[in-house]
Amino acid sequence: MMFLKAQKNNVEFRPHFKTHQSLEIGKWYKELGVDKITVSSLEMAQYFSTEWKDITVAFPVNILEIETINQLSEKIMLNILVESIETARFLTQNAKNKIGIYLKIDVGYNRTGLSHTSTQQINEILNEISNCAALDFKGFLTHAGHTYKCRTKEEILSIHNTSRKILTDLKAKYIDRYPGLIISIGDTPSCSVVDDFSGIDEIRPGNFVFYDLTQHQIGSCSIDQIAVAMACPIVSIHADRNEIVIYGGGVHFSKERLETDNQGTIYGTVVEQLEQGWGEPVSGMYLKSLSQEHGIVSVPESLIRKYKIGDLLYILPVHSCMTANEMKSYYCNAEIITRL
Amino acid sequence: MMFLKAQKNNVEFRPHFKTHQSLEIGKWYKELGVDKITVSSLEMAQYFSTEWKDITVAFPVNILEIETINQLSEKIMLNILVESIETARFLTQNAKNKIGIYLKIDVGYNRTGLSHTSTQQINEILNEISNCAALDFKGFLTHAGHTYKCRTKEEILSIHNTSRKILTDLKAKYIDRYPGLIISIGDTPSCSVVDDFSGIDEIRPGNFVFYDLTQHQIGSCSIDQIAVAMACPIVSIHADRNEIVIYGGGVHFSKERLETDNQGTIYGTVVEQLEQGWGEPVSGMYLKSLSQEHGIVSVPESLIRKYKIGDLLYILPVHSCMTANEMKSYYCNAEIITRL
Repeated sequence: MMFLKAQKNNVEFRPHFKTHQSLEIGKWYKELGVDKITVSSLEMAQYFSTEWKDITVAFPVNILEIETINQLSEKIMLNILVESIETARFLTQNAKNKIGIYLKIDVGYNRTGLSHTSTQQINEILNEISNCAALDFKGFLTHAGHTYKCRTKEEILSIHNTSRKILTDLKAKYIDRYPGLIISIGDTPSCSVVDDFSGIDEIRPGNFVFYDLTQHQIGSCSIDQIAVAMACPIVSIHADRNEIVIYGGGVHFSKERLETDNQGTIYGTVVEQLEQGWGEPVSGMYLKSLSQEHGIVSVPESLIRKYKIGDLLYILPVHSCMTANEMKSYYCNAEIITRL
Repeated sequence: MMFLKAQKNNVEFRPHFKTHQSLEIGKWYKELGVDKITVSSLEMAQYFSTEWKDITVAFPVNILEIETINQLSEKIMLNILVESIETARFLTQNAKNKIGIYLKIDVGYNRTGLSHTSTQQINEILNEISNCAALDFKGFLTHAGHTYKCRTKEEILSIHNTSRKILTDLKAKYIDRYPGLIISIGDTPSCSVVDDFSGIDEIRPGNFVFYDLTQHQIGSCSIDQIAVAMACPIVSIHADRNEIVIYGGGVHFSKERLETDNQGTIYGTVVEQLEQGWGEPVSGMYLKSLSQEHGIVSVPESLIRKYKIGDLLYILPVHSCMTANEMKSYYCNAEIITRL
């Protein structure tokens, strides 16, 4: 779906692989013809470099890893993110092979990136980069992570339109000097709800491969689009307080939490187990707390007698990237899929 | 210190190794003469079984792992936790080798365990266990995890005294039938502040090996007793909003948070970097938010010009067990220590 949308809009599709971190899942994309990817660390870039030859590390360069950068850029087209003159200078002095450079632009998330109004800083960095033949300025990249605070499609669209305006204005300003420059956006909420990507050259969504409860709360996906669930064995049942204890804790789900209207803070939602896969959420059944290895599931009184020790509960995670990061493999149609 | 306290009190010291998960750190205990340990999963028990021959898995038995239980109990003295008649029955039918059984007792934490007042359930389980020669009832075990909500020594002592009363009453009730039975307590806050363990046979603290900001807030340790810090490279500096971006996010720290009076929700505290190790917390410098790989550090305006890209910030974690679980190794006196 996301691939088709990118194709229809004629934008480059460079999916973020930090969500699944798996060469095998990567193959699904390869079969579609995708040949460029995004990751969030050099370690992931190394892992994927056996199969992928054009990788963007969407994280501000950690200059202490220059050796890995030089090793990787010998083998693949490595693209990295710069947002300061200090980093640009360091790269000018230390880059050994051709590296693609994106300037990270802050469009209002206020986590990383240069302000689009910092023309002097942007020019200074571009001038520094142009001193070094190895550094190839590719364009402006952003991650509108503030869409994760949205709860309606309209809010997401409004952020997207602001981001697009900022980036297309920047592009217009620099296109004469850099005729090939592109603008790249990233967040899954925007990529999910926006239909018209005009003005954008590249999209880098990642989470959409699985989606999760957070994306559902934002409005990026429906519950039945969530494609990853944790199967957790029941180890104890406390009928007196309508609780089930599962083997599934912070080391499995991470401690990612979601604030909900009805259930307060939750760490996951239990779904019906079907013969193949899973179905709808079980009303009133959710992961209410996590320790290192334990999870406590709140269960309606009417259902608690249905379960017994050793049964598996299927649970949708709050944040699939974090949950997948904790686990070492996936089950898919009864096969085990490994990851980094 | 903890070892000496146990020795002085003449209680068995069975440290919990889930915090460090490292055979090499385990050796420090071996040198003291410790020969029994606690872990929180069968996977950890397998990892440590090469060096340790008496291991308690302090987690309610996951009956789906019976094969691993039978494999391990062939090689080592494996002790497991039972809190239901269903699990007891399953073990009676499936245990192949001698296994130590503890009944998990809930002393008010309300996470897992049998209520001490459920005499009928306790008797039923003990009778079931006695049907099987392989199952060796060892005693009553608890984890007073509600001490983690305490903020004064008095509160912790009050919980400890209640737990002790519950367990010693149980012991008195069953000692004639099981002359060797012991009572075992676990939480690091109690083990840290209690000086007199009379009535207790075994303690299983784990977190004290590193301690962390949570234990400091509880009152279990001083800041300078925290023995693990994360060294995180600075990747970006935003002087306009007094923030530093580090390479250190949820996949490194876990998303464990701490509510503080002065700084709101924090994910870590920055400490001074010394030539060897680290010193005091830097006033007003703390980890204010985490993404998957990014951490945002709040920095006082007066200090922000002191730092440059590529510098390392040393950060004390909120929960050392979770942070250590995310990382694959430690640095100790310039040596790398590996773990499971």
